[in-house]
Amino acid sequence: NIKMIVSYDGSGFHGWQTQKNLRTIQETIERALCKLLGEPTSICASGRTDAGVHAMGQVFNFRCGQFMPLDAVFRALNAGLPGDIRVMDAEEVDQGFHARRMSKSKLYVYIIDTSEAPSPFLRRYALHEGRALDLDAMQQAAAEIQGRHDFISFMASGSSIRTTTREVYVSRVFRQGTRLYYMIEGSGFLRYMVRNIVGTLLLVGRGRMGAHEVPGIIAGRDRSLAGPTVGPQGLYLLKVRY
Amino acid sequence: NIKMIVSYDGSGFHGWQTQKNLRTIQETIERALCKLLGEPTSICASGRTDAGVHAMGQVFNFRCGQFMPLDAVFRALNAGLPGDIRVMDAEEVDQGFHARRMSKSKLYVYIIDTSEAPSPFLRRYALHEGRALDLDAMQQAAAEIQGRHDFISFMASGSSIRTTTREVYVSRVFRQGTRLYYMIEGSGFLRYMVRNIVGTLLLVGRGRMGAHEVPGIIAGRDRSLAGPTVGPQGLYLLKVRY
Repeated sequence: NIKMIVSYDGSGFHGWQTQKNLRTIQETIERALCKLLGEPTSICASGRTDAGVHAMGQVFNFRCGQFMPLDAVFRALNAGLPGDIRVMDAEEVDQGFHARRMSKSKLYVYIIDTSEAPSPFLRRYALHEGRALDLDAMQQAAAEIQGRHDFISFMASGSSIRTTTREVYVSRVFRQGTRLYYMIEGSGFLRYMVRNIVGTLLLVGRGRMGAHEVPGIIAGRDRSLAGPTVGPQGLYLLKVRY
Repeated sequence: NIKMIVSYDGSGFHGWQTQKNLRTIQETIERALCKLLGEPTSICASGRTDAGVHAMGQVFNFRCGQFMPLDAVFRALNAGLPGDIRVMDAEEVDQGFHARRMSKSKLYVYIIDTSEAPSPFLRRYALHEGRALDLDAMQQAAAEIQGRHDFISFMASGSSIRTTTREVYVSRVFRQGTRLYYMIEGSGFLRYMVRNIVGTLLLVGRGRMGAHEVPGIIAGRDRSLAGPTVGPQGLYLLKVRY
């Protein structure tokens, strides 16, 4: 049972999960592993990432029957992968380890580029917002997200899932130069949850919604109360904790 | 006569200059201008950039018969351009202004990512060099490049050009975090000159050549004495002075 940590530039992929005739991260890694190990290998990630979403610390695991020195697998796998996916670390883990079921929390960052003019270098790596944003208000709104809540108001409509309650441990916005970073760590995330929260924070930043309205959005349990879904290009899965 | 400053992510282009059936920066801008102004418009840049080379301050000019408020042209042009090209500034200039002939100097930066593992996010935006580099030696070698020299040893072989003497005003290497930056400003540049200088600095950084050998490479007037041409992905045209 081998656990790997992987970074990828999501801009060239149709998300993590294998889909027919589309370039996905899962399929690209599975194909490289199959070539390397000489047998079909399926990998299991901590969770899917959507099309255009990036990762700096996605985790997956897979079972490998044969004995292979890990260092060699690691290097050979990177040699067989395209430049937009890099395996950062590999280790042997207990037979019982399961990347999705055993994850304790996930940490995401969403990057907003607040330069007046959008940079051609950031179009795939950050959301551009040229209007002035009220950082204080956004920070207050972000703090309201923290805690154990039913986040159904921030879930992609049409998702079917048993429970929509999640615990958010960290939810904060900070500025560095011309960029805003939104960090969120939680026990788990609903579909589009981070991007819908960021869409809501942006409404607050632009003065179109008050930070004090966030608890009402959560309590209302209605997707239409929250802001729009922002693009995937600013979102990075940073770390999965076990 | 309108002068514009433009940034572009060179990774999706076959360089500046129009070539049949290839996506180039010049052709993309000319097509957008033609659509906007309703007439074929040709633009003249400070110089070409090669395939994969980026710019944050390329300059071009063009003549426009009709009166158009500059602000409107600027905004409409950006709306018509793809996201990997952004016009940053526009101004009306003297009839005599010519972006190529009148440039006094150009400033380039070359970025080397020295993280141990190559980042999937930098593969199109920096050269990766995982081996340890001797920064002191590279700084000494860079200093030897400064001055008025015949740079034919650093010119792409096969180029035909009248004079290969250029003046380099600034040539220095510095580190910031895991990245090395090589800044070079000069009166003008020969084909592949910056990339061949960087290839030579890397040989010095790896200890395969001494900084004291650089004057001999210049004096030898022989391309085979200098290092290899590094990739275009680390190179940015930062500024053109007039």
